[in-house]
Amino acid sequence: MTPRLKNYLEKWRKEVDRALDRFLPSEKAFPQVIHKAMRYSLFAGGKRLRPVLVVAGAEICGLPGRKVLPTACAMELIHTYSLVHDDLPAMDDDDLRRGRPTSHKVFGEGMAILSGDSLLTYAFDLVAKNAKMVGSQAELADVVHVIAQGAGCEGMVGGQVVDLEMDGGRWMKLSKPKQKEILDTIHEKKTSALIECSLTAGAHLAGARAPQVKALKQYGRKIGLAFQIADDVLDIVGDKKLLGKKGSDAQNKKLTYPALYGIDSSRKRAKRLVEDAKKAVRPFGKRSALLSDLADYIIERTY
Amino acid sequence: MTPRLKNYLEKWRKEVDRALDRFLPSEKAFPQVIHKAMRYSLFAGGKRLRPVLVVAGAEICGLPGRKVLPTACAMELIHTYSLVHDDLPAMDDDDLRRGRPTSHKVFGEGMAILSGDSLLTYAFDLVAKNAKMVGSQAELADVVHVIAQGAGCEGMVGGQVVDLEMDGGRWMKLSKPKQKEILDTIHEKKTSALIECSLTAGAHLAGARAPQVKALKQYGRKIGLAFQIADDVLDIVGDKKLLGKKGSDAQNKKLTYPALYGIDSSRKRAKRLVEDAKKAVRPFGKRSALLSDLADYIIERTY
Repeated sequence: MTPRLKNYLEKWRKEVDRALDRFLPSEKAFPQVIHKAMRYSLFAGGKRLRPVLVVAGAEICGLPGRKVLPTACAMELIHTYSLVHDDLPAMDDDDLRRGRPTSHKVFGEGMAILSGDSLLTYAFDLVAKNAKMVGSQAELADVVHVIAQGAGCEGMVGGQVVDLEMDGGRWMKLSKPKQKEILDTIHEKKTSALIECSLTAGAHLAGARAPQVKALKQYGRKIGLAFQIADDVLDIVGDKKLLGKKGSDAQNKKLTYPALYGIDSSRKRAKRLVEDAKKAVRPFGKRSALLSDLADYIIERTY
Repeated sequence: MTPRLKNYLEKWRKEVDRALDRFLPSEKAFPQVIHKAMRYSLFAGGKRLRPVLVVAGAEICGLPGRKVLPTACAMELIHTYSLVHDDLPAMDDDDLRRGRPTSHKVFGEGMAILSGDSLLTYAFDLVAKNAKMVGSQAELADVVHVIAQGAGCEGMVGGQVVDLEMDGGRWMKLSKPKQKEILDTIHEKKTSALIECSLTAGAHLAGARAPQVKALKQYGRKIGLAFQIADDVLDIVGDKKLLGKKGSDAQNKKLTYPALYGIDSSRKRAKRLVEDAKKAVRPFGKRSALLSDLADYIIERTY
C-alpha cells in the first residue's frame, strides 16, 4: 500500500467512524435494543471502503469529501445491513463475522432482521440529509436512484438471490459456460454494484458530468470484481485468524472463481481487472492517482 | 362507507394496481425468482390504503393524485415488505396472509428476507422517480426524510421491535400503567407512523405549508391508532374466513387493546380517535370530506 493511500484510508476511516457515531440514533434512544443492534454491527472494525469511495468519487469530481459524509455513512449502513442479513441462518448461516458473534447470535434472529431493515431505511434518510446540507437537492433524485439500483433487486440483492439459488453446490449441475456466466453475474451484482454506486453517488453529489460518472462506474465494476476474486482467494489461502471467519466456501461448495478457474488463474484475472480499472480513471489525470493506488491495493492482499 | 369514499377508494386502488404493475421489474427480468416473490406479495388483494393516503394527502393540498403515483406505490412496497418480514418464523411465524401461503412458505425463508429487502429499496427508487416526474426535486429531501422516519427504527420498525420484545406474554410482567404506555407506543410506531408519512409525503410533494403537514400528521396518527384497535378487535370478533387468517392474538398472548381494556372500551377509544382525526383536518374545509369519510369507515368494520 502506498503511503498516500494509507494516509487517505486512515484519515477517512476515522472521519467516517466519527460521522457514523454522530448521525446514528443513540443507544439510549427508545427502543434501545434496535439501536444497540445497529451499532453493534456497524462498529465492528470495518475498513469503511465504500464510504471512502463516496468521498473519493466526490473529490475526483471537485467536491471536498467532508461534504458527502452523510452519503458515505449511508453506504456503510447498506453494506452492514447486507452482512447482517447474509449471516442469518436462512442465508449463509454464519456464527462469526470479523471474529465476533454475528448479530442474530447476540440479539436473536428477529432483531437481526429488523436491525438490517433499520440500517437500510436509515441510509436513505442520511442521503436526504446530505442533499439538504450541500444544497444539491437537484442531484438528490440521481443519488437516490443510483444507490437504490446498486443495492436492490437489480444490484446487490439480485446478486445475493443468484448466490442463494446456487447454494449447496447446485451450480455444479450447470454447463461450464453457464457456470462462468452465473459466477460473473453474482460478482457483478453482489459486490461491484455497491462499489460502483458508492463512487457514482459521490460524483453525482459533486455535480459530475456524464462521462465522469461513466468512468467511475467502469472503475467500480472492475475493482468490485477484483475485490471479490481476492476475497475468494483469501478464503482459501488467507490467515483464518486475521480474517476472523472460517474458510467456509469450499466446505459449503460455493461457486467462486478459485472453484472454477483455480487459484493462479483467479489471481491473473484479478490483476487484469485492476489494470482495466486504472485505465478507466486515467482521463481524470493527476487526480486519479489515489484510485489507481486503491486498485493495486485490492489484490495486494492475495499475495 | 359513503358512496363518495367507495368510488375514491375503488378508483385509486385500480390506478395504484396498474401503476405497481408498470413500475415494478417484470417477472421475466433476471433473477426471476426475486421479482416473482416481490409481485407475489404485492398482488395479494390489498386495499392499497397507504397509497390512497398519499394521493389524498397530495389532493387535499392541491396536487392531482396521478402526480404522486410513484410515491403512492412506494408506500405499498414498504407496507408489503413489512408484512413479508413480520410473517417470518423468527417474527410472528405466520403461514397464511390474506388466505394465501406467506412468502417464506412459497419461496423459502432466505428469499422472503431478500424479497422484503428489495421491496424496501425499490420504494426509495420510486420516490426519486416521482420527484423527477413532477419536477419537485426541492421537496424530495423532505419526502425521503418523512418516509425513512416513518418506516425505520424511529417509526414502523421501532414499533415492531417493541412488539417483538413483548412477545409471548412478556408484557404481563409489567405494571398496568407501563402496559398501557407500551401499547400506545407500539401502535403509534407500528401502524400510525406509516399512515402518517403516507399523508405527509403526498402533502410535501404538493408543496404543502407547515400547518397543512402538521394537520395531516395529526389526522394520520389518530386514524392509525383507530385502525390498529379496529384490527385487534376484529381479530377477536371478526369472521375468520373473511380475514384470511387465524384469530391468533389471544392465543399468542399478544399485547392488544382488547387484551388490556376489553372489547367495549376499545371500541369507544377507537370512536374517540376517529372524532379527533376528523377535527384535525377541519381547517381544510370542504376538501376534508373524503378524509372524514375514511376515518368513519375505519371503525365501521368493527361493528
